[in-house]
Amino acid sequence: MKSDLPAMMKEHSLDALLVFGDALHNPAMVYFTGVVHVTEALLALRRGGQPLLFCHAMEREEAAATGLQTRSITDYKFSELLKECNGNHELANARLYQRMLTDAGITAGRVAVFGQRDAGRAFGLISALGELLPNIEFVGEFGSSVLLEARATKDATEIERMRRIQKQTTEVVGQLADYLGRQRGVDGVLVDKDGQPVTVGAVKSKINLWLAERGLDNPHGTIFAPGAEGGVPHSMGSPEAVLRLGEPIVFDIFPVEAGGGYWADFTRTWCLGHASDAAQKLYDDVRFVYETIMSELKPDSQCSSYQARACELFQQRDHPTVAEDATTKVGFVHGLAHGLGLEVHERPAFGRDATPNDMLRRGSVVTIEPGLYYPERGLGMRIEDAVFIRPDGQPENLAEYPLDLVIPLKN
Amino acid sequence: MKSDLPAMMKEHSLDALLVFGDALHNPAMVYFTGVVHVTEALLALRRGGQPLLFCHAMEREEAAATGLQTRSITDYKFSELLKECNGNHELANARLYQRMLTDAGITAGRVAVFGQRDAGRAFGLISALGELLPNIEFVGEFGSSVLLEARATKDATEIERMRRIQKQTTEVVGQLADYLGRQRGVDGVLVDKDGQPVTVGAVKSKINLWLAERGLDNPHGTIFAPGAEGGVPHSMGSPEAVLRLGEPIVFDIFPVEAGGGYWADFTRTWCLGHASDAAQKLYDDVRFVYETIMSELKPDSQCSSYQARACELFQQRDHPTVAEDATTKVGFVHGLAHGLGLEVHERPAFGRDATPNDMLRRGSVVTIEPGLYYPERGLGMRIEDAVFIRPDGQPENLAEYPLDLVIPLKN
Repeated sequence: MKSDLPAMMKEHSLDALLVFGDALHNPAMVYFTGVVHVTEALLALRRGGQPLLFCHAMEREEAAATGLQTRSITDYKFSELLKECNGNHELANARLYQRMLTDAGITAGRVAVFGQRDAGRAFGLISALGELLPNIEFVGEFGSSVLLEARATKDATEIERMRRIQKQTTEVVGQLADYLGRQRGVDGVLVDKDGQPVTVGAVKSKINLWLAERGLDNPHGTIFAPGAEGGVPHSMGSPEAVLRLGEPIVFDIFPVEAGGGYWADFTRTWCLGHASDAAQKLYDDVRFVYETIMSELKPDSQCSSYQARACELFQQRDHPTVAEDATTKVGFVHGLAHGLGLEVHERPAFGRDATPNDMLRRGSVVTIEPGLYYPERGLGMRIEDAVFIRPDGQPENLAEYPLDLVIPLKN
Repeated sequence: MKSDLPAMMKEHSLDALLVFGDALHNPAMVYFTGVVHVTEALLALRRGGQPLLFCHAMEREEAAATGLQTRSITDYKFSELLKECNGNHELANARLYQRMLTDAGITAGRVAVFGQRDAGRAFGLISALGELLPNIEFVGEFGSSVLLEARATKDATEIERMRRIQKQTTEVVGQLADYLGRQRGVDGVLVDKDGQPVTVGAVKSKINLWLAERGLDNPHGTIFAPGAEGGVPHSMGSPEAVLRLGEPIVFDIFPVEAGGGYWADFTRTWCLGHASDAAQKLYDDVRFVYETIMSELKPDSQCSSYQARACELFQQRDHPTVAEDATTKVGFVHGLAHGLGLEVHERPAFGRDATPNDMLRRGSVVTIEPGLYYPERGLGMRIEDAVFIRPDGQPENLAEYPLDLVIPLKN
């Protein structure tokens, strides 16, 4: 967690961190600043020191709200720098950052860089800065990183926020289940009180309204994918699609705190009115793996071991998995789990990207999301909850929600 | 516009472009793919060729919806690459991109990189790729760039979308004006029908609901800043603040198409019930500059000339401006205008960052947003509309909305 950063920086042989960009939808920046309307900023943190936030004058009040020490970028008088650089904007910009780093006391050593930016801008600026400040070695950690490692365990304040948004998310899920259960089936299709088919697009509009009512953002949309669409894990669901009774719908919802803070992540698979035996059997297999894994979670274990265990359990039930064939498109085709926090996918990793450092620890928040996919049979099934490994080592489901496959129709 | 890209790439001496990241909230990627649920992708474009999109198998259906030629990243079998690299994830990842570039026919020449990423990941990966592919010169354009130059003029399809979202935005503005006008003033404070003060937070909740009803995202929130808060251009407005009659409120709203497409940007300043003479006079000065600039817009002119003109007009009315003192915190303290499109601030630039290449052209979409700020007097004023320079050279306000300062209270 954040309090581990000085030690982790030492372990990574880093003398300072730099974070570029906005304090909105920018996990590395928001980790230090919270969500505030500060754009095109620079945060500098020397090992063992306090963060220093450079921001533009017209966002000074927003920057002050972070409680961090701040400096005005405007005071560096870019137009004068530009004259000194004979109108070369890129050089003037690099000089601007050179001066800010110098004033932050960062002129030598290993300095890791972070923050959501355009890749070209980041590469260009950091390369240019490297020439202006030859005693600094700029470090781009592109696998895991010191910040991702720190963020991989959460402190009490973070957990409180994550519990809240995951619970708000399940409230919306409950509202939708209630709404769908109050509609009618006509000729095998769900229709509303006016007799119009309920479409995927209409469902997503309701979800967005209910999320907005709770002050949540939904920048990546919602997966609400019926039938064959649900058979491909990340197909979102076509807006014009109607909902057929008995057809499994994969419903994966992942909103974020307004402005880009902590994320929720939650999935259920639903059949409206009834489920076929084939669907129920597939679902029972997913639920068995979900419940088995949930019962086996314990701190200080390798994340990759849970991925292997899930594959083993699915194989015992005669499903193909990524363990035998990484390119399989049927059976269990994805990672079992992932860290959750300021990004919807963060450390620790369980699947393809897992390293020996990816451990489940006290303070981890991870999703558990086994699934089975048979697109040619029109079947996709996934269950996902978010779990916190408490300081006492016990797993806590951040928001309990029923696991029923069938949403009964009341009318 | 996009059709100019091959010629622009030639002008910039670029043989290929690479775009990293998601096809959501990632302007460089969305420019080619549209908004689709494709994550951690790579788009490769050779000069004169067609874009090639590398994506993960479980997002294959979403990727296919782009209409672009696609390849599966999953087929590169990362786990085998990882074995070849003795478990070194960063090297295996760099090799993965090396193979994708090779298969895209990009093995030499000048290659510009784009896409929203973590700055460290981008810098690290591109540096590593540079070692694996020594005949490629990776280019990070960090001032303007070939893509920003292409995006600086819009084609008919883009304009249709921008007109739509700007109009939807003014609909929401109208809904809010109507709502506020139907409340009552009690002891100088606006109260709702239950006698409760209307707060900034409550107003923003309504705005978010009304935006969600139209399928729009609002990832950066809304500025609704009364009194002294409005005196600092980017102060958002404190949620708990109440609305006092006569106090100017800066209302700057900038939603985006769902998933991160085209942005709207629009500002009005309102006084509820009545305005003081001082507020009205200040507003009249802003409105005069707004109307003068709007009447003077013409294609093939330097953007910086409008910034200079606005400063001149404000100075004639005895207001300090950034032209005399770049660090002034009173008077006209910011840029007059900016390009609008897949980012809320894009090319052409008018203020600090304007270069001789920043021209108003046929196809440009820019905001015009003069403002005056006197925070110690509790006064901030800004008017902003989005203007398209049509193919016939005439400016078109993308969404007309009344310029009245005062919102009369009906009760």
